[in-house]
Amino acid sequence: MVSAAPFPNFELAVEAARNIWFNKVDVNGWLEAFGAHPQIGNTSAKNQKTETSAQWSKGEQSTALATATDSTLQELLDWNARYREKFGFVCLICATAKSTPQILSELKNRFPNRPIVEFEIAAREQMKITELRLAKLYAAKAEVTPASN
Amino acid sequence: MVSAAPFPNFELAVEAARNIWFNKVDVNGWLEAFGAHPQIGNTSAKNQKTETSAQWSKGEQSTALATATDSTLQELLDWNARYREKFGFVCLICATAKSTPQILSELKNRFPNRPIVEFEIAAREQMKITELRLAKLYAAKAEVTPASN
Repeated sequence: MVSAAPFPNFELAVEAARNIWFNKVDVNGWLEAFGAHPQIGNTSAKNQKTETSAQWSKGEQSTALATATDSTLQELLDWNARYREKFGFVCLICATAKSTPQILSELKNRFPNRPIVEFEIAAREQMKITELRLAKLYAAKAEVTPASN
Repeated sequence: MVSAAPFPNFELAVEAARNIWFNKVDVNGWLEAFGAHPQIGNTSAKNQKTETSAQWSKGEQSTALATATDSTLQELLDWNARYREKFGFVCLICATAKSTPQILSELKNRFPNRPIVEFEIAAREQMKITELRLAKLYAAKAEVTPASN
């Protein structure tokens, strides 16, 4: 991304990000990127590279956190552990605007998948998260940089 | 495989191996298994877990080695290096009965693939190699154990 920057607009930035993520980053790179995410239901910065990244995760999981009860949160933690045990990486779900029951249902539906199938689904979820984060960056940029014409 | 053994015949052993490899082994396990293979054109035991495994690779690549010239062997090494650079793991091709030009052509055809696509192709090639090795094990067993009826 850095070598291809700057991007004149959000659409071109997303196009470049998709191309790099799906065509250039190898499977080791996917696993490394997955490793930088907190598990759903846990927004602590412990495993996250930066404070910004921890803040992003917290914002993305705000609907889930607002709709979680102690028992659904415990169920989510249990299913996350089962998922990680089966697939070898944290469960990636683009959580924006999703309630805890919706996330739980999605996780349970995905659980029977073959590892390679789930690996590609997780990568697509990762790209959705990246797109939402890029949108936030461009929105923030638009706020501080008024259009010149 | 060990916990599911013994298998009464080759077909049941292959069925169990396929089920474990495609449905149970996670993507980290696939990468670990890929790492135990020598690159095509190199049959030294350096990266191989056991002497038996090195002997197997050598046998599987005997057609390739017999049909290799210095220049095709060099081309194979160069393409292997490009493949490894792009995908992050050694190029896996079931080499049994394939000539060096056939292997080179297959490697070049696969090179433009997306990383995730190539990852699954490599896993299928790994399974082909495993099936051929299981066949050899059962054939050897049949030689030393005459049928009892």
